[in-house]
Amino acid sequence: MKNLLKPISSPPREEELIGRLEKVRTLMAQKELDYYVSFDPINIYYLTNFANYVHERPFILLIPIDGTPKMVCPLLETTHVKTRARLKMEYVTYYEFPAPEGQNWYEVYQPLISNKARVGVESVMPLFISEKTPGEQIVTDIIDEARLVKTEYEIGRTVHACELISEGHKILLEVAKPGTLELLIFTEVQKFLMEKLVADIPDFNYYVTKVGAAVLPPSKSHDPHFVPTPFLPMEEGGPHVSGVGGQVDGYGVEIERTFFLGYVPNGIKEPFEVCMQARALAYEMAKPGAILSEIDKKVRKVIIDAGYGDRILHRTGHGLGITGHEAPYIAIGDDRELVPGMLISIEPGIYIEGQGGFRHSDTVLITETGNVKLTNAPEKMQDLVIPV
Amino acid sequence: MKNLLKPISSPPREEELIGRLEKVRTLMAQKELDYYVSFDPINIYYLTNFANYVHERPFILLIPIDGTPKMVCPLLETTHVKTRARLKMEYVTYYEFPAPEGQNWYEVYQPLISNKARVGVESVMPLFISEKTPGEQIVTDIIDEARLVKTEYEIGRTVHACELISEGHKILLEVAKPGTLELLIFTEVQKFLMEKLVADIPDFNYYVTKVGAAVLPPSKSHDPHFVPTPFLPMEEGGPHVSGVGGQVDGYGVEIERTFFLGYVPNGIKEPFEVCMQARALAYEMAKPGAILSEIDKKVRKVIIDAGYGDRILHRTGHGLGITGHEAPYIAIGDDRELVPGMLISIEPGIYIEGQGGFRHSDTVLITETGNVKLTNAPEKMQDLVIPV
Repeated sequence: MKNLLKPISSPPREEELIGRLEKVRTLMAQKELDYYVSFDPINIYYLTNFANYVHERPFILLIPIDGTPKMVCPLLETTHVKTRARLKMEYVTYYEFPAPEGQNWYEVYQPLISNKARVGVESVMPLFISEKTPGEQIVTDIIDEARLVKTEYEIGRTVHACELISEGHKILLEVAKPGTLELLIFTEVQKFLMEKLVADIPDFNYYVTKVGAAVLPPSKSHDPHFVPTPFLPMEEGGPHVSGVGGQVDGYGVEIERTFFLGYVPNGIKEPFEVCMQARALAYEMAKPGAILSEIDKKVRKVIIDAGYGDRILHRTGHGLGITGHEAPYIAIGDDRELVPGMLISIEPGIYIEGQGGFRHSDTVLITETGNVKLTNAPEKMQDLVIPV
Repeated sequence: MKNLLKPISSPPREEELIGRLEKVRTLMAQKELDYYVSFDPINIYYLTNFANYVHERPFILLIPIDGTPKMVCPLLETTHVKTRARLKMEYVTYYEFPAPEGQNWYEVYQPLISNKARVGVESVMPLFISEKTPGEQIVTDIIDEARLVKTEYEIGRTVHACELISEGHKILLEVAKPGTLELLIFTEVQKFLMEKLVADIPDFNYYVTKVGAAVLPPSKSHDPHFVPTPFLPMEEGGPHVSGVGGQVDGYGVEIERTFFLGYVPNGIKEPFEVCMQARALAYEMAKPGAILSEIDKKVRKVIIDAGYGDRILHRTGHGLGITGHEAPYIAIGDDRELVPGMLISIEPGIYIEGQGGFRHSDTVLITETGNVKLTNAPEKMQDLVIPV
């Protein structure tokens, strides 16, 4: 497993993508599908290394159970797809959106699929693509399923991304002082991350890269999804909750810490410690075979038993992969098992209006025997009181 | 109309959003809909001023034909929605994703709609939302339709955004020298734009803001959707094709120019002039009542007649609004009429491998009598040869 923890920053080789395609085809065969249609840019990126974003000109990846996958894309974008894709594909080009009769996207797409075929489609497929898709449609998220357990290459890329954001988080803790504006924290950390990223991956893909940093000061940190405004100032004391993360050339990662500027106000120690106990239990339980909903239930119980049950606002954690938020979920309602090679965040939280928020989050790999934290920052309260 | 051209940078007042909702309800009444369901974050932003992005926890806006619209959203995000939304809504909160039985998003969503209702849904609605939506579903993009013609407020915001990016484009032309790397151009222009944006709109919304700049040098500019890599250097001569644009706190705009560093190579004048003639015809035709497909057909004819028909890669232009690419389209296949208050790009192009690309683009408002360019940069060849 140690070997797995070597950072990788090179683009995927074709074999890597062929392996991913084979995983998807195994699932297609189990469901007796003749085709699978992918419109979700995240899934298309996973299989091909080509990143698009959804706009009015559709890109559609059509995977037959045998033979070469086909990419339906606009004339204008064909060379763009070819320069990025590292999976062998046939290109089926349409004229424009909209287009003269006979040359619209659906007019080149529909002849590719027989009306008698069994066609797997994503649950996020938009109605307008579904309406134009021939055959019997079976809604099944098999690419998402293939993405759950990471390959060695994906783990290496994630290790690289986690090293990067951990360094970014160090900068964040240096910059944050009482009075420092959100904008400065964001700008300084982002500048650092982008310079480092460009040095490591000179031809990084802009469409799957979005890194950032934020801190919610104690007057806001009770509201974990508050979107900070540029002129929001840091405050004395705490709890501040930091976050550095995003998508590093296609790999979603995060690190978050509860920290203090100068001193720890009264009444803060107890919720902080309860949060840390809940977190410790999550790490103890996060190993192969553990049921995700069970972890969430027991971690919540620690918080509830300490009297903070009505201060919980979210689940214990979520999966990471191409995005920073994806299946599986450490949540009541997700009864799947943890499997070696899964990447999850562990981040139970407590939120008290008038006091603030309490949450550490890390990007964590499930190993054969347990788990390993891929991000790195101080964890104990005494190490998180920044002198001002 | 002159008055319309005053820049606005303040957030929308509630009356503005009520007016937009009324437009949608008029269209709902015409289609005899009891409800309209919006999942598209762009449409939700248009109606509420709340910007989200699609992730696993759904946000759903439910508009009854009468009464207060309802926002279905996760517990965690409720305060976030409330701080940004400027339309009065009722909040229907669900526990988490996934959630214990009885507390999932669809379990709070479904009781809001009667099984007998006629329910309008977006063509981009994902299958998993459609599957959980009660009633008879009618696919109809009425919010998109309401967005086609802009209000005075939207025009004012767009004027502001166009002034900003026109200034950014000036910086771009100053920075671009032979050997200058793409990364530097992007960084310098983006820094300028963000500093100016923060000064103008201190609490701008990060989720609907993405500004950038790029130049394709002559070795790449024949491929208009080539995604530039950071270390791509500018070249002597040209044609270089620049672009500055994006989404400025919720308003999509663009400006693009064909320019030269030091000198104009041989054989470049003719395609440049043909492109300018095609462009001039588009401006001449772009007035209320003109049919979009007719404009595209005639503009293409100018290029075809000059012998460059096989060098066309895209339509003459597209609409702008919240996004930088939306209906209506100046394209064969879009038989709608231009209407005062529409915003379009005008950007016919010619693309010759080995020589480069030729395209100017501007953000253009359709007025009562014709059109007015909202972006501003040199247009003639002699003004676009930058001394090096």
